Amino acid sequence: MPNVRLAMAQTNPIVGDISGNLQLCFEAVELAAREGANLVVFGEMSLTGYSIEDLALDSSFLKQSESAVLELAHRLQHAGLGEIAVVVGHAARASHTPIGSWAIAQNCASVCLNGNVIGRYAKHHLPNYSVFDEYRNFIPGNDLLTFEHLGLRFSTVICEDIWQTGGPVSQIAAANTDVTLVLNGSPFEIDKTDQRLNLVGKLAKAQNTAVAYVNIVGAQDDLVFDGDSLLVNASGALIARAKQFKTDLVLIDIESKDSMIPLLATPAAKSETLWQVWNALVLGLRDYVNKNGFSSVILGLSGGIDSAVCAAIASDAIGADRVFGVAMPSRYSSDHSLADAADSASRLGLHIRTEPIDAMVTAFESQLGFEGLSAENLQARVRGVILMGLSNSEGHLVLTTGNKTELAVGYSTIYGDSVGGFAPIKDVAKTLVWELARWRNLLAESQGESLPIPERSISKPPSAELRPGQLDQDSLPEYDVLDSLLEMMIEQRCSTEEIMAAGFEPELIDRVSTLVVRSEWKRRQGAIGPKITSMSFGRERRHPITNKFKRI
Amino acid sequence: MPNVRLAMAQTNPIVGDISGNLQLCFEAVELAAREGANLVVFGEMSLTGYSIEDLALDSSFLKQSESAVLELAHRLQHAGLGEIAVVVGHAARASHTPIGSWAIAQNCASVCLNGNVIGRYAKHHLPNYSVFDEYRNFIPGNDLLTFEHLGLRFSTVICEDIWQTGGPVSQIAAANTDVTLVLNGSPFEIDKTDQRLNLVGKLAKAQNTAVAYVNIVGAQDDLVFDGDSLLVNASGALIARAKQFKTDLVLIDIESKDSMIPLLATPAAKSETLWQVWNALVLGLRDYVNKNGFSSVILGLSGGIDSAVCAAIASDAIGADRVFGVAMPSRYSSDHSLADAADSASRLGLHIRTEPIDAMVTAFESQLGFEGLSAENLQARVRGVILMGLSNSEGHLVLTTGNKTELAVGYSTIYGDSVGGFAPIKDVAKTLVWELARWRNLLAESQGESLPIPERSISKPPSAELRPGQLDQDSLPEYDVLDSLLEMMIEQRCSTEEIMAAGFEPELIDRVSTLVVRSEWKRRQGAIGPKITSMSFGRERRHPITNKFKRI
Repeated sequence: MPNVRLAMAQTNPIVGDISGNLQLCFEAVELAAREGANLVVFGEMSLTGYSIEDLALDSSFLKQSESAVLELAHRLQHAGLGEIAVVVGHAARASHTPIGSWAIAQNCASVCLNGNVIGRYAKHHLPNYSVFDEYRNFIPGNDLLTFEHLGLRFSTVICEDIWQTGGPVSQIAAANTDVTLVLNGSPFEIDKTDQRLNLVGKLAKAQNTAVAYVNIVGAQDDLVFDGDSLLVNASGALIARAKQFKTDLVLIDIESKDSMIPLLATPAAKSETLWQVWNALVLGLRDYVNKNGFSSVILGLSGGIDSAVCAAIASDAIGADRVFGVAMPSRYSSDHSLADAADSASRLGLHIRTEPIDAMVTAFESQLGFEGLSAENLQARVRGVILMGLSNSEGHLVLTTGNKTELAVGYSTIYGDSVGGFAPIKDVAKTLVWELARWRNLLAESQGESLPIPERSISKPPSAELRPGQLDQDSLPEYDVLDSLLEMMIEQRCSTEEIMAAGFEPELIDRVSTLVVRSEWKRRQGAIGPKITSMSFGRERRHPITNKFKRI
Repeated sequence: MPNVRLAMAQTNPIVGDISGNLQLCFEAVELAAREGANLVVFGEMSLTGYSIEDLALDSSFLKQSESAVLELAHRLQHAGLGEIAVVVGHAARASHTPIGSWAIAQNCASVCLNGNVIGRYAKHHLPNYSVFDEYRNFIPGNDLLTFEHLGLRFSTVICEDIWQTGGPVSQIAAANTDVTLVLNGSPFEIDKTDQRLNLVGKLAKAQNTAVAYVNIVGAQDDLVFDGDSLLVNASGALIARAKQFKTDLVLIDIESKDSMIPLLATPAAKSETLWQVWNALVLGLRDYVNKNGFSSVILGLSGGIDSAVCAAIASDAIGADRVFGVAMPSRYSSDHSLADAADSASRLGLHIRTEPIDAMVTAFESQLGFEGLSAENLQARVRGVILMGLSNSEGHLVLTTGNKTELAVGYSTIYGDSVGGFAPIKDVAKTLVWELARWRNLLAESQGESLPIPERSISKPPSAELRPGQLDQDSLPEYDVLDSLLEMMIEQRCSTEEIMAAGFEPELIDRVSTLVVRSEWKRRQGAIGPKITSMSFGRERRHPITNKFKRI
């Protein structure tokens, strides 16, 4: 007879929607109760959503957040669920505020039982790198929370606490912990996942504890939380694993730190990388659209690979009937561009219309006489005005289809092809866009479906088609060379010596570095989009605009 | 016979331009030497520029920064200036890197003497609030640097170190310090200044030390460093003060911590607040334009107050011959709008041309049939395309003329009136825009000059003129009410209770709060502009886009 039936509740909270998130938690406990659970653990900040950024500095917000914990305890008690121990994440006002900080709050986990809050833990290690500013927004806690429930001892910590050394995590064994409950808000990154499993396994062995690692799921602005909650026993062996990129409730019977059985068999390993990336992009787009209340999206379809891939992601995310494509041919558009755009739309089954841009372009040119680069940018900007106008008239969210390589070197027209509220492939390098397209078509093929992305969009040489015969490679190095160099420069933060040692010429390094520095002002005004790499543009990479740094 | 002739060198470095900044320092020492100085102190990060943000994570950057310190010492020695002790700020690689951080560098001050670097201090207190992310980018140092020179003892600390308690600052008295040298990168904020004088005075008395507080000057992106370097004796009495908003070199003969005489009398107090704000805006614009290599700026002139004030700031900053105005009347423009735009241009002496927008608007409307809000936004976007096209053709930087009130509530057209690389009055509330306009005209009057801002632009009711008879107050509360509410909500971060206690109706608070939350996505894509308040939009206020928080 097991002591504890644990439910790891992988919910998808919305930042700031405290009453909605409370309802999600309540419903998850109800569901877990029907399955016989007597302990339910949620992810980090499951009541407030994550990351709340500077909302942590707002005393009205903190008041609501703290009330929600009490309300959850009361509602559970009132519903006859009070005997289930429930561990939720939330923000709470700290009892002290340090000098030299704006922070007034802590990042907390509270334990609700019998209508009360019986314990509270405050996160100790506050990540202040990458996309995180937690040292700005929170005050660290120092004490491990340990509680007994149905004969077992549980300790509670939060996310970064297990990625660092020292602090409350080092007291877990001394507290005679059976199961450590780790609440997480851990965003997806390519190849990050098994880092988590390794880490949790190491913690289990080091502190002689089973570990329930519960992550939130869903996207918040540029971050995609992928779920993939884990349970390991005190030997570090994987016992249960929740779905990736989906809400889930995983139940496990726990007799002791060494002996536990999941109610259903769960996957032991992750799916392949391209599957993960595609699903991260799909979830990122879906949640941005739905959480912000848009009924549909609109995007320009050029017949090129970027817009074809964005259209396929959008169709997978919200259904093709909510996706509106616009082909906007100009005098320089190739015959195949219109055909490929139509082909893309018909494969996906999305709405498409054609709006040639010549009349508007001519109106500007006749009055203002733009030439050269001005005339090229003008075409992109007329397209931007059309998309924004249709968005204003019809209520669609505009998607901007630029990829990470273009963003890095500034190969785009600001207020032109960059218009939009969301950039689905903003963190996807051009070479990875092609890989994803081929992978998505293979997936369709393997499932006996028609291919969602036109083969010609994948195979033809990329072109912005803003002047006759233009090709991307007239202005840029070959994409495989450029992407390798950019990855060393931006993601790996290599020194010039290291990049040269990898075989890149100093002139090329200098040329690309200059393009990256000069286009910072455009990136700063760009739409957000889902982070999938270890160094996305936006709040993860913070560079000055005014910047005369030259690599030498 | 004084022991030491100290020069406080208030230079204007450019971020990343390490060789240029080195040259500025070298020239300042040469100039100080001609005036007989034997100790020269620069501001924080005077060799690298400030703030370098994530450049601190780049090992190539750190290598250049460290080489520059040695090169400065060598060049001074070679030029026969080696006997002058020179204290400069720069970044340097740390000897250790902590777990759980990306930081690899320290924010340092080095003392050059006789061709060597004789001492190095690393900043201890790292600000990680407001616009600062120093806990992200630097590793704290722990030890006070004290050195002897010409019979006096000097201790060195950096900026935030004196704003907090504890750390190296608490060891100054014990080190028998005569003069504490504080290197600063302290940005301008309304009413901040005498905080610095108070702070420096308190430090002097608490640690029984004279204090030389040396600030950099000049703008870097959204920050305006205002200079205003200070020297107080050990009783906390002000002895010397450098210019505000200008480079400067202030010389003082120091016999002891109590006895010191400036070579020239310097101002004891600051100028009035509106003078300071105007000069901050002027310097912010001038340095963005010049440091980024633009020869000219362009902006739309609507005849309204915002564009008239921006044009005046630009003319004061870089001279009217580098300022290009464009009047872009539509079918809804009032007669006075064109007249007032022309009046503004002629008062300032800037270039102006008129580009009616009707032909382009009609081209879009005939094809796409936009109506209502779409048609209003279309007009603003056609103007944006014109300005960007002229920028591309002629090389001007586009200025966007939105004020802080509009940005707060989203009263603007994205990719329309928001286009541009720099937003001169982005942090200036609408009511302050009017105050500044009146103040600038009074200044001109008092100097017998013609008034730079048309009286009618100041006095007429504000309108976007995007539909017949439209006034801002059709959609927004009166600006004095709105600005007071926004100041409580955003700058003072008041709770709902506090705002209600000040007399605002809950419905109004809710309506304004909703507008602020919903327009975050637009602000995120906005141009940078100079921070003048204690809570500017941009990197100082970091709120999520997806955000369902409702004040209740």
